Amino acid sequence: MKLTKDKKILIVGLGLLGGSYAQSLTRQGFTVNGITRSQKSVDYALKQGWIREGTAEVDPRLVGEADLIVFALYPGVFIRWIEEHQALFKSGAILTDVTGVKACIVDRIQGMLRPDVEFIAAHPMAGRERSGIEYSDEAIFAGANYVVTPSERNTAEAIELCEDLGRTLGFARISSLSPTEHDEIIGYVSQLTHCIAVSLMTAKSYDNLEDYTGDSFRDLTRIARLNDEMWSELFLLNKDTLLAQIDLFEAEMAKIRHYLSTENREALREIMRHSTARRALFDKKKR
Amino acid sequence: MKLTKDKKILIVGLGLLGGSYAQSLTRQGFTVNGITRSQKSVDYALKQGWIREGTAEVDPRLVGEADLIVFALYPGVFIRWIEEHQALFKSGAILTDVTGVKACIVDRIQGMLRPDVEFIAAHPMAGRERSGIEYSDEAIFAGANYVVTPSERNTAEAIELCEDLGRTLGFARISSLSPTEHDEIIGYVSQLTHCIAVSLMTAKSYDNLEDYTGDSFRDLTRIARLNDEMWSELFLLNKDTLLAQIDLFEAEMAKIRHYLSTENREALREIMRHSTARRALFDKKKR
Repeated sequence: MKLTKDKKILIVGLGLLGGSYAQSLTRQGFTVNGITRSQKSVDYALKQGWIREGTAEVDPRLVGEADLIVFALYPGVFIRWIEEHQALFKSGAILTDVTGVKACIVDRIQGMLRPDVEFIAAHPMAGRERSGIEYSDEAIFAGANYVVTPSERNTAEAIELCEDLGRTLGFARISSLSPTEHDEIIGYVSQLTHCIAVSLMTAKSYDNLEDYTGDSFRDLTRIARLNDEMWSELFLLNKDTLLAQIDLFEAEMAKIRHYLSTENREALREIMRHSTARRALFDKKKR
Repeated sequence: MKLTKDKKILIVGLGLLGGSYAQSLTRQGFTVNGITRSQKSVDYALKQGWIREGTAEVDPRLVGEADLIVFALYPGVFIRWIEEHQALFKSGAILTDVTGVKACIVDRIQGMLRPDVEFIAAHPMAGRERSGIEYSDEAIFAGANYVVTPSERNTAEAIELCEDLGRTLGFARISSLSPTEHDEIIGYVSQLTHCIAVSLMTAKSYDNLEDYTGDSFRDLTRIARLNDEMWSELFLLNKDTLLAQIDLFEAEMAKIRHYLSTENREALREIMRHSTARRALFDKKKR
């Protein structure tokens, strides 16, 4: 199934990501409506011309006429929204999301959803250090990754539509992982990295630090500015996986610490060469 | 003492940093010569017009006529160079360096140096993930920090000259720390961050990782591509301080791990808010 212009799109949650979806899709000629908790965000999206209609209440008409609904909500809010309002969906509607954890979300939503409606999960790996629709910008999708996470309940048609949405938004790479694989990898590349950045930012403070830093500290703490409500929820929903990833990283830090304390220069050089080779390969593969 | 155009400058070590110093100073009309181990690097610097004269051997004339000598060598090589060749210095010459650790270097060099020659240490906090003069580019100094690390043996004149060199090269901020303060802060913002990046890059590998990463992983591993010869030497020369900084960071990671494993969401949110506030302040102070 292709994302054609006759499809009515509804975005639920006009924050940074939801707003950017609306901006991109409206600019490309799709019919996009929006529902979000804050009237201010509705007004902003209308004023920017990013949505045709918008409400701060759940409007049964807007929900009922949508062919594709994108949920750009925090995980817990998303689950409760489906519990309360799924009777409103049009039969045959396709739902997708932007949630940063997948296994628990896919299980919960697909487990309770009406059989005539399909939920196909996706993770657009784009964002900013600020949240809110006023920071929305479809430019964040360029060069970024978009991962579709189908389960065995999904149809080929819905998966294709979801991938087509990612392509339409301008993501550089569209790929596919199972929800569990997704959570393991995201636990490493995204959640663990946020734990590290926060620890580095909070473990120690020096006066006038900004006068003594090079790019290293700046780069490693850029993501230390984060939305605590969202990230704490994502961490807890992926708790066991994230704990395992932290332990993996800590074991590697302990190795370096040991090489250093025993003044094993050759082992230090060897792990640095390993790191350099891997990162060089990563740079090369980054198309 | 100001860095005036009548001063003859010699750069010993034409790598990434030494080459960038030569490029910037020659472009601004200073007389710059160079000595470096590799004839290929001498030829490259001559061909680029970055030095007036250059040799791969230690030329007594080039050393003897220099008013200011910049040592852009690895720490151990730097110390041996001074031991072997300090008889060649012109009386009254000022020496400076670019070394990433200070306490041991300043102690060793000042402790053995001829009394009619002065060594004033500095750390230009600029670099790249590649080494070698072919990656030199004076643009790396723009926006970067330059830290002078005088000891009680240094004169006001030499300190002023060294600061003036940093300004001339185009560094955004010139500041001053004692060698010990420098090593403590650098142990945190630079060496610890490199340990983290290496650990993150080597602890785990996923197939097609580049398809599933956002900016977080890319940012946190940019410096995982590093010169193992130089960094292992710098780590070992700052061993005790770096071990203490690793322990500080590890204790903070253990806190986050604990909050997560006990599902203490409020404590997670609190440390994230703390991190966010600190990083926001850091962004603001970054002039």
